[in-house]
Amino acid sequence: MPAKSSINDRVLDHVQALHAYVPGKQPQGADWIKLNTNENPYPPSPAVVQALANLSGDQFRKYPSPVSGELRKAFAASVGLPNEEWAFVGNGSDEILNLLMRLFCDSERCGGYMVPSYSLYPVLLSIQNAKQIAVRYDGSFELPIDDVVDCEANIFFLTSPNAPTGVGIPTDTIRNLAAAFEGVLVVDEAYGAFARENALSLVEEFPNLCVTRTLSKSHSLAGMRIGVLLGNPKIVQLLDKVRDSYNVNVVSQAAGLAALSDPEYYNGLVEKIVTTRDKYLTQWQTAGWKAYTSESNFLFVQPANFTGTTGSKVALSLFDFLREHKILVRYFGNDPLTDSYLRISVGSDLEMLTLSETIDQWLKSV
Amino acid sequence: MPAKSSINDRVLDHVQALHAYVPGKQPQGADWIKLNTNENPYPPSPAVVQALANLSGDQFRKYPSPVSGELRKAFAASVGLPNEEWAFVGNGSDEILNLLMRLFCDSERCGGYMVPSYSLYPVLLSIQNAKQIAVRYDGSFELPIDDVVDCEANIFFLTSPNAPTGVGIPTDTIRNLAAAFEGVLVVDEAYGAFARENALSLVEEFPNLCVTRTLSKSHSLAGMRIGVLLGNPKIVQLLDKVRDSYNVNVVSQAAGLAALSDPEYYNGLVEKIVTTRDKYLTQWQTAGWKAYTSESNFLFVQPANFTGTTGSKVALSLFDFLREHKILVRYFGNDPLTDSYLRISVGSDLEMLTLSETIDQWLKSV
Repeated sequence: MPAKSSINDRVLDHVQALHAYVPGKQPQGADWIKLNTNENPYPPSPAVVQALANLSGDQFRKYPSPVSGELRKAFAASVGLPNEEWAFVGNGSDEILNLLMRLFCDSERCGGYMVPSYSLYPVLLSIQNAKQIAVRYDGSFELPIDDVVDCEANIFFLTSPNAPTGVGIPTDTIRNLAAAFEGVLVVDEAYGAFARENALSLVEEFPNLCVTRTLSKSHSLAGMRIGVLLGNPKIVQLLDKVRDSYNVNVVSQAAGLAALSDPEYYNGLVEKIVTTRDKYLTQWQTAGWKAYTSESNFLFVQPANFTGTTGSKVALSLFDFLREHKILVRYFGNDPLTDSYLRISVGSDLEMLTLSETIDQWLKSV
Repeated sequence: MPAKSSINDRVLDHVQALHAYVPGKQPQGADWIKLNTNENPYPPSPAVVQALANLSGDQFRKYPSPVSGELRKAFAASVGLPNEEWAFVGNGSDEILNLLMRLFCDSERCGGYMVPSYSLYPVLLSIQNAKQIAVRYDGSFELPIDDVVDCEANIFFLTSPNAPTGVGIPTDTIRNLAAAFEGVLVVDEAYGAFARENALSLVEEFPNLCVTRTLSKSHSLAGMRIGVLLGNPKIVQLLDKVRDSYNVNVVSQAAGLAALSDPEYYNGLVEKIVTTRDKYLTQWQTAGWKAYTSESNFLFVQPANFTGTTGSKVALSLFDFLREHKILVRYFGNDPLTDSYLRISVGSDLEMLTLSETIDQWLKSV
């Protein structure tokens, strides 16, 4: 018998070279204050808990609706689109982004994205072994429309509000881009519920524009993995060709339907989070810290120590201090535009008070 | 402004040409007898329902464990593998098959599979725009080992027990193949719980062999989408590079853990289904129908009408008659080895009795 080739000889070269996306830490145990993954600090609507309690063993044993039909209908209705043909439901919006890469990107057809932005896009493009192009923001974080139009991407991913900055892109800017850009434009509105404006009104206007959203943040359902793409029926039909047959399980479909049935509850949550966010933005800006005006459920702030010094060492010093006190935030050290900042998810009043007091301790300690 | 190119100009050519996998029908309404998708006729363990009732809103609002850590551990333990490094959990085993294509197949590296077998493999290979090779069974449905060894696939998918026939492949045969085959060998044991033998004992022996399983059929959790790959840690590590960060939601992780905690219950279900299966196999064979000896939770039978005639028209006649009486079974008309047969999932005693009586009506009606 000849010596066997190893698994590593068999795997595709580009996978061998791949660096997986690293999500924020999910520590177990209730004693952590988690302000690192932009989860909602408040529980989902009681309607969700009730809907799950109503599910029977008979529903578990059978396959779910392959197309998540009722949920597509509810999503389309919730944003005023004509019908379910304009909505595609995914196992989180990450799955939808992944499927879009498989539709539109390969070694010749390029996927584009802004930098700094959601760092999953380049990972998904690399998994697809696709050509990719990054368009850079400058420190103003105003969208350089001409650079995007000229980049010749077959599909372009635009996060609005952006992560990790929280800066929103005005709808008029997106309209101008959609009118000029030749490829498919995906507006990733994972944080859209917390923004002043959104691109939903452009979906019917531009067949090449679609919007992705998630119930993870605004609807407190990160654990359930429910994302949606709102876009032209042609894009939805293409996604249906490449998704897994039963990509969203029966519980997520029920939870999503229940969540969308209770908009008053969620509008209240969003209002509360926005109020908390703006309070702490003002507080830190008053203390002399630079911070971007956020339209999302997190703040991107540049900590200054007691001497007024900023920089990556200062940011990391606070990051470490917080972690020692069981508070998790997120640090993005790989870009000069982000490496002196921390991204802090907006937590509950108590969590934010504890954070604030811990920052005061840090200021005295260094 | 120049005329925009359409979405169809932007999508990759091979996707444009793609035919999506068509799963069995999932009619709504309780009045159907569903014997078409190999669901378990019995509800999941009470431990599952209890585990879901114990989940709190706080668990829904937070992201799940990215690696489904506890569930990997439980799967590995349930089959006697050393530790969680030998298990990968997916959003159904379909997701795992899909990820394997992305690791090992492209326009040069070929994916192989048996025909007739699970018709998803060629669809997943086409989504990946990968080279593919089909090795044919003959009517004996004995595995032609040499053909598989010689096919030069980089990865080969072997369904055992096979679908839609239910025929199991002896472990010794799979061992011989694994020893001779140079590529990665995936034994798809979606129906393995109902079989006399399985390939789990080969996982530690052969680094190039892995087994996929699902809780959909044996554990009555098709609605929850829980699949597992049991294989060498190297394969698990590669899968971790290309999966979505949070591919299995918090409810599925909890349901899977609870299901694996109650093996007595599931062994009872499997025993009951096997008893029902063998009873009807004998009944139909006694009536003169050809049927393969099944090691799964379905039967593959060649209906003969009252004159003893068989063939695709006869099979379709019974298929249509059953559907008119609100009984769904599955027909595979695209292959001469299957087009005179029907695949019938093993249902509850009452469902099988109703089926049997309806077949008697059909025999009198044609």
